[in-house]
Amino acid sequence: MMSASYLGCERVGGIAASNRGLHYGDGLFETLRVHQGCVPLWPQHLARLRAGAQRLGIALPDVAFIETQINAHIAGCDAGVLKLLLTRGDGGRGYAPPVDALPVWQLGLHPLPPAARTGLHLQVCQTRLAIQPALAGIKHCNRLEQVLARREVVLAGGDEGLMQDGDGRVVSATAANLLVFREGRWLTPSVQRCGVAGVLRGRLLAQDWVTIAEVSLEDVESSDALALCNAVRGILPVSTLGTRTWTAHPAITDLQARLAMTYPMFQDAVVSA
Amino acid sequence: MMSASYLGCERVGGIAASNRGLHYGDGLFETLRVHQGCVPLWPQHLARLRAGAQRLGIALPDVAFIETQINAHIAGCDAGVLKLLLTRGDGGRGYAPPVDALPVWQLGLHPLPPAARTGLHLQVCQTRLAIQPALAGIKHCNRLEQVLARREVVLAGGDEGLMQDGDGRVVSATAANLLVFREGRWLTPSVQRCGVAGVLRGRLLAQDWVTIAEVSLEDVESSDALALCNAVRGILPVSTLGTRTWTAHPAITDLQARLAMTYPMFQDAVVSA
Repeated sequence: MMSASYLGCERVGGIAASNRGLHYGDGLFETLRVHQGCVPLWPQHLARLRAGAQRLGIALPDVAFIETQINAHIAGCDAGVLKLLLTRGDGGRGYAPPVDALPVWQLGLHPLPPAARTGLHLQVCQTRLAIQPALAGIKHCNRLEQVLARREVVLAGGDEGLMQDGDGRVVSATAANLLVFREGRWLTPSVQRCGVAGVLRGRLLAQDWVTIAEVSLEDVESSDALALCNAVRGILPVSTLGTRTWTAHPAITDLQARLAMTYPMFQDAVVSA
Repeated sequence: MMSASYLGCERVGGIAASNRGLHYGDGLFETLRVHQGCVPLWPQHLARLRAGAQRLGIALPDVAFIETQINAHIAGCDAGVLKLLLTRGDGGRGYAPPVDALPVWQLGLHPLPPAARTGLHLQVCQTRLAIQPALAGIKHCNRLEQVLARREVVLAGGDEGLMQDGDGRVVSATAANLLVFREGRWLTPSVQRCGVAGVLRGRLLAQDWVTIAEVSLEDVESSDALALCNAVRGILPVSTLGTRTWTAHPAITDLQARLAMTYPMFQDAVVSA
């Protein structure tokens, strides 16, 4: 692991014991793919961060300063994962956000996870995503549902978990969006009620390569191809969900190849299921 | 504010930048009323903390050690609020909880909020509580719903907010449980779907002074008396909710007086609406 440094508007280094991220998950984060000393999806991550800060009423630190720090952080890094954590700041016993809270944020550089050489083993999680439009879409720090779901996956020895909302609609994996290939089209569930509006999902939607649709568990199980996507690992084929198995499908390699033309960092995710 | 100190099983002082409480709200807390150098409701707080740790799969630090630290912390404190924060610990980029995570926790002593001398002004919050049975009842650190609701209250100049679940059932205030007096009985909503199982609410239920019942907004508005309760401030009368007003009601002073017989620290909450 490469060294991580931690920056705050109020201080450099250290998280105060009264930090509201620590006490209430009162913050936002972004997990960025670093490629050849750059962050190719930075504008999209920044847009989501800005939307989240707006939604939660958290002050966004000066963007030019953030960008300077990111560049200093990733200089010379050929491939890695940069985590940006933005908390509302310090202070206040009680839920009321201090009106004058100065945001406290940090950057941490981590190694790139190893590329998947086979399709993923997916399982249906018992833990559901609660329906909460006020927090849906943004990448906030209230992630106990994902922690519990991920614990299920680890205990069962799987790779990732499929999460449904409280009403049984399929939403996403624990740390990736879902791509369902049916009747010649790539579909992805809405994240208006719960779930995270993934940055890579957003790129695929913007290109009209993927369409938003309501997806049931039966739709997933009977799909022609299944994949997960996120901004760190690109598009990853799924090879099993329970007893259902999928073999390599040209729709996945096609989508991966189209993506890799714009984002060559995702070239190495082009594996067959 | 009295000085606060911070204790961890792995260290004394300081929160690591990789603390999972900070990144995911992956933790639990208790807010305890200190009275004459004691914590009269400690057994109830410990029971809820234990239940939360069990639910989330967080290791509970040695209880005797916690109690020793609490006692050292509150020695000589006549009246105050002790906050105990228990996080899963450090480490791991990604939601999967490290199997060997050592819990990291802290104690902070805060001044007692001033006693309310009049009834509270309550308002209905737009922010709803998402229905999530997996997290309901326990006092975990995913509190963005309460932060957003409390922000509404501050902006509107009220004292506290009334929160409904996603289906419109009334649940609680942002930082207190709800007591609704109707047809000669004290009712409080269930916290099986969302909300926190307040320690003082638990005492009132155990005494059969209060009964669990489904409560609609209309039930609240047409109630004969309305009060909030929590373990820091006791039972607080509500005097307004929107255009509805309540004057002092003997059912509230009766409940306060009964509680104060066992917990004299709540004597000073005996104010009339």
